[in-house]
Amino acid sequence: MRNSASNAPAEIQAGLEPEDPMDSDSEYFASYGDPGVHRLMIADHARTDAYRRAIEAVVEPGMRVLDVGTGTGILALFAARAGAEVWAVDESSILGVARELAEANGLASRVHFLRDRVESVKLPHQVDLLVSEWMGFFALAECMFRSVYVARDRHLGPDGRMMPSDVQLFLAPIEDSQLHVERGVGLWQRPVHGLDFSPLMEHELHNLITSAVDLPQSSLLSPGEMLLELDCRTSSTADFFFESEVGFTIERPGTLHGFGGWFDVGLGSDVRLATSPFVPQTHWRQSFFPIRPLAVYEGDEVRVQLRATPKEHGDRRLPIYFMDLWIDREGDEVHRAFYSHEGSFE
Amino acid sequence: MRNSASNAPAEIQAGLEPEDPMDSDSEYFASYGDPGVHRLMIADHARTDAYRRAIEAVVEPGMRVLDVGTGTGILALFAARAGAEVWAVDESSILGVARELAEANGLASRVHFLRDRVESVKLPHQVDLLVSEWMGFFALAECMFRSVYVARDRHLGPDGRMMPSDVQLFLAPIEDSQLHVERGVGLWQRPVHGLDFSPLMEHELHNLITSAVDLPQSSLLSPGEMLLELDCRTSSTADFFFESEVGFTIERPGTLHGFGGWFDVGLGSDVRLATSPFVPQTHWRQSFFPIRPLAVYEGDEVRVQLRATPKEHGDRRLPIYFMDLWIDREGDEVHRAFYSHEGSFE
Repeated sequence: MRNSASNAPAEIQAGLEPEDPMDSDSEYFASYGDPGVHRLMIADHARTDAYRRAIEAVVEPGMRVLDVGTGTGILALFAARAGAEVWAVDESSILGVARELAEANGLASRVHFLRDRVESVKLPHQVDLLVSEWMGFFALAECMFRSVYVARDRHLGPDGRMMPSDVQLFLAPIEDSQLHVERGVGLWQRPVHGLDFSPLMEHELHNLITSAVDLPQSSLLSPGEMLLELDCRTSSTADFFFESEVGFTIERPGTLHGFGGWFDVGLGSDVRLATSPFVPQTHWRQSFFPIRPLAVYEGDEVRVQLRATPKEHGDRRLPIYFMDLWIDREGDEVHRAFYSHEGSFE
Repeated sequence: MRNSASNAPAEIQAGLEPEDPMDSDSEYFASYGDPGVHRLMIADHARTDAYRRAIEAVVEPGMRVLDVGTGTGILALFAARAGAEVWAVDESSILGVARELAEANGLASRVHFLRDRVESVKLPHQVDLLVSEWMGFFALAECMFRSVYVARDRHLGPDGRMMPSDVQLFLAPIEDSQLHVERGVGLWQRPVHGLDFSPLMEHELHNLITSAVDLPQSSLLSPGEMLLELDCRTSSTADFFFESEVGFTIERPGTLHGFGGWFDVGLGSDVRLATSPFVPQTHWRQSFFPIRPLAVYEGDEVRVQLRATPKEHGDRRLPIYFMDLWIDREGDEVHRAFYSHEGSFE
């Protein structure tokens, strides 16, 4: 094993030192332990631009704003640029970069960067607006709303506003042979280089993986229906681990390969950030809940009950979803099934 | 928090029990902790078919074969189908599935499944052929060759063969504005919704991320050159942490955004498995090593020294690469730079 520093010519090593004071090199580098995540979020134009528009519409000079999980600080900088006094909280070392970006943009005097968990942070005043981009895949992954709600209950003034102000989850029945093979259980239906791999399909059906995909609009067997709506000002963390039922009427005959899921959030002042198949793609894409494929016909009534449950041990990024599925045809129940899905959004 | 079993109707719960004996449900499910990985590998047609062809060409009835890291057992099944007696080793619980697949294909009597680390396993005989699909991104990620080489030194007979038999690494200079923005440092060169984010570029340049990408052939500023070649029969683990230099002559004027990397392995009997931009895509794709962009001209001589080093602490999946770069123009050195890259292959 080599020492990295000893490999670099001396004049180049000198260039490796950050020019601006930061907490420390090692902390800065550690912040890139999840590489590309800030890049991904900032490069997501629909996301970042929706927040920019909402912040510019809502924030007035002198307003007090709390940004929970500020990352590179981009939302805090939007708010500061609109005239607010901002408290920007993040426990990650990325905060050193956020500070530097505030300085580069002449906004450092209006942003208080607090490197801490938002659960521990103390603010001198209640705030008028709590801004946060806390949504994971299918909104719930990451469970960051827990921290946001703690911050809301401690720091938001009685007339304070939340951004996002509401969350809506949608579901739709999907026919998509390619997704069925690539993300469902279809790969195992056919011989694999002359070998029978169908036992793998049976195993997979016991613990299906929910993954992030790009759902073509043409794959929908009926329009999406709203599964859940939460008011971010009044709902509690428990409301996110929902149990909700939704029904669809199949619009054309086909094969039901699973369900597509997406979300919408209201950001205030009529700005919504949507992740449906009907709007330009975001980095969240859509979620695909595969099932054992099933022939369906025009007019079939499909009912789904979906329950979201945090994993018992550890990984808060991936909720478990339980799905009950019923299909009624001309008034009779012709199919009923139960599935368990783990979220995986690589 | 709900108990999953209690949510399912009783008759459906019964259906959740695996039909075939396995080590245990929990172990089976644990094997899906890295979801989709077996699916990804098996669905990679170029990969799986190259192994199938090589195994069918090399394996003769009665041959003894060791499969290191057998996963779902697909390579072991190819060898068994060709008449070999196979020892298939994996420490993952996926081995229960592999056993089931061997039974489904009538090959269970020819495959000995050993759930163990290959470093601990005992075999009754030396083997004639060691098969393994150990390659990570840019071949080196995962460092699984370490285990393969231990198995080789302990279990391969004096005239035994290795599959793969050799590994070649390639590098090429790349111009690609889209990659530069999406995976290089280009995102920060332009204002971000009216904010100056260029300090992030300076930070990123201190610790660049090597990622898996699809390199268009048109992005190459000169053909690829071989950086490293290893004989899998005779090389040692230390040989994988190489320090190697390669030179290119730029064929057209452009902007050098970084270097593309890929690998080739020989599988025996003239079958090669290649991951270059010139052959159909594999799940390994190509690797992109970004740099600070640089104008280059036809005839420029570009030299790169690349060193691969394991991370000191822990994560064996991501080697660190150090790159020295020189550019000579009409006999003069016009540029010299040093970069450090961490591998990230999400």
